[in-house]
Amino acid sequence: MSPTGAPVELPEGFRCHVTNIGIKDGTDDFTVVASERPCVSVGLYTQSSFAGPSVIVSRQASAHARAIVVISKNANVATGAEGLANAREVVAGVAGAVGCATDEVLIASTGVIGRQYPMDRVRAGLAAIPRPLPGCDAAAVARGIMTTDTVPKLAVAGAGAARVVGVAKGVGMIEPDMATMIAMVFTDAAAEAATLDPMVRRVVGRTFNAVSVDTDTSTSDTAVVLANGTAGEIDPAALEVALEQVMGSLARQIARDGEGATKLIEVCVDAAADDAQARRVAKAIVNSPLVKTAVHGADPNWGRVAMAVGKSTTADEIDQERVVIRFGDQELYPVPVDADGLARLARYLRGDEVRIHVTLGTGSAAATVWGCDLSDGYVRINADYTT
Amino acid sequence: MSPTGAPVELPEGFRCHVTNIGIKDGTDDFTVVASERPCVSVGLYTQSSFAGPSVIVSRQASAHARAIVVISKNANVATGAEGLANAREVVAGVAGAVGCATDEVLIASTGVIGRQYPMDRVRAGLAAIPRPLPGCDAAAVARGIMTTDTVPKLAVAGAGAARVVGVAKGVGMIEPDMATMIAMVFTDAAAEAATLDPMVRRVVGRTFNAVSVDTDTSTSDTAVVLANGTAGEIDPAALEVALEQVMGSLARQIARDGEGATKLIEVCVDAAADDAQARRVAKAIVNSPLVKTAVHGADPNWGRVAMAVGKSTTADEIDQERVVIRFGDQELYPVPVDADGLARLARYLRGDEVRIHVTLGTGSAAATVWGCDLSDGYVRINADYTT
Repeated sequence: MSPTGAPVELPEGFRCHVTNIGIKDGTDDFTVVASERPCVSVGLYTQSSFAGPSVIVSRQASAHARAIVVISKNANVATGAEGLANAREVVAGVAGAVGCATDEVLIASTGVIGRQYPMDRVRAGLAAIPRPLPGCDAAAVARGIMTTDTVPKLAVAGAGAARVVGVAKGVGMIEPDMATMIAMVFTDAAAEAATLDPMVRRVVGRTFNAVSVDTDTSTSDTAVVLANGTAGEIDPAALEVALEQVMGSLARQIARDGEGATKLIEVCVDAAADDAQARRVAKAIVNSPLVKTAVHGADPNWGRVAMAVGKSTTADEIDQERVVIRFGDQELYPVPVDADGLARLARYLRGDEVRIHVTLGTGSAAATVWGCDLSDGYVRINADYTT
Repeated sequence: MSPTGAPVELPEGFRCHVTNIGIKDGTDDFTVVASERPCVSVGLYTQSSFAGPSVIVSRQASAHARAIVVISKNANVATGAEGLANAREVVAGVAGAVGCATDEVLIASTGVIGRQYPMDRVRAGLAAIPRPLPGCDAAAVARGIMTTDTVPKLAVAGAGAARVVGVAKGVGMIEPDMATMIAMVFTDAAAEAATLDPMVRRVVGRTFNAVSVDTDTSTSDTAVVLANGTAGEIDPAALEVALEQVMGSLARQIARDGEGATKLIEVCVDAAADDAQARRVAKAIVNSPLVKTAVHGADPNWGRVAMAVGKSTTADEIDQERVVIRFGDQELYPVPVDADGLARLARYLRGDEVRIHVTLGTGSAAATVWGCDLSDGYVRINADYTT
């Protein structure tokens, strides 16, 4: 699943072009991925009322989009009519270069808010897109879409004869509401739109929508899946498993690379009355700055977990006596931990993954979400960022 | 209004006893305030499902409570039947000492969660309460209820012939939901319960419930108002103004003393469709870790304010073109700031109070909330805190 080691190619029939066009600095900031043949596509976008032109244009695209262009280091958000016209010009330019209809091209952007694209450079970049697209290196795509990410995020899974390859970016302003900042998943599986659309929504709900770095929802969240069918029909159950492996891996990679993060936090809430209760409590725990700082300090402060359970539920919903709180496999409430257990916990909490497990005792539903610790590094990164 | 300078006495007819009984260290941790005559009382408590025995016992008290005991440095939360029995024993002991019924005594506690009171020390403290209570120094009461507060929080206002004196504590786990961690307001005004109860709820809604340090809601939030009538009947409008002056001041003192805080943030949202929309957007802004870190870094990052507006509203609710974002009096969106304005803003943001003003353009409602910046200090305080 991990991108370390051998190069990862895009699925059969996808090609890419990744380059620098000078949006902000000398790193890659202009990425195009296109399929040689028509695709079935599903795109999920931010629910923010300050959604940018990229999201607006992509929402209007065809359900058979076959190309996507990503401009990084500039979000093109809160840029008004000029920003919208610029996004349309980019999409039209890419359509011309890869030889498809304008509404078959999706666009995504992340970076600074409130600044227009440098259109002279963007136009030069559009004019210089090689025909056909030269590459197939998925890791190059993962690197091309990074902004302040410290590592590229790439995941791969097989589904029968097909492959599923996904890339994502995002380290801050991350509590996706429909999708993460930018995630692109490519597969050569064939899939009906009527099957793929609800499948992707289910998987996004269990993966990207279960991640929170800092409770802040981006204006640019975009997750797209393009399926070009080169590998033929795949059992839908196998495809859903592969999509969940890829998107789940990307979701955890995003949490682990959260701004300033030193640890991945996984919160599992089970024995809940329903999915909504399980998810609400899990999110309250993973988003609590007091829980996040306790994990950062390797302190098994279960009182803060109890606080988060308390604030996210009413007294009618919860019987305090039935709640069980564990860090890793160690119970801390209601049965107190002994000295041996505390020593084991101290070692566990010094690791780079911490699992908080809360049993509510109100039913049989469960939810798992991911986040990260809150460190001085998060504060420094975001206090020193200059607009 | 401020506690600096001259000593502040409790209103006529209230007496106090503040001492150390050895809950955790040598600082004052045991505070009793009682009225010599019957009171009308209003208490508002946390909505947390993990509310502790203090909240449970106080909720069951009379609407004519005339005394309150505060034990600090131990929250007595998640302590089960034993903790509940201990809270009842404390209340009974105080009732005996001040000469009133058990259900006329309120109790509040804050501090570590999940640990029983050291009852041998508490019993010795109860036995040693002087009769009558010896003091009337409100500042001693404000100091007696502190846990990790760096300054005592005290506010005073006049209402006709009556005085209103309030004290509060709380620096972390602060996004009150009904009341702040502990606030006690004493007045010698006479008031009917039917008038005072809705008045206190209104004022708490505009003051304590408009504060957030870190989005985390305490298991121990308690706000009580005791009115003993010594000064006779007061014009209700004048009393409400005085209560709002005192509780508003305490709310801002809590935000300014938020854990690690270096700046008070005031967020005003106006031209909103209704109070709920104004409040939802204002809370999203003041709670955004990205906005809080930008203020900490003195960066006028209005894009993050736009993000917070976006995440707390739907595209149906908001027209991006009608939103106006200002820091202090300086507009930043949609009309961009010029170089002179930016220089003025830089000076403004280095001050210790930052006002963010958002005009939504959807109606005529407004809300104001208070919070603080997010600093490395917050992380260090809460990562290094040991359970």
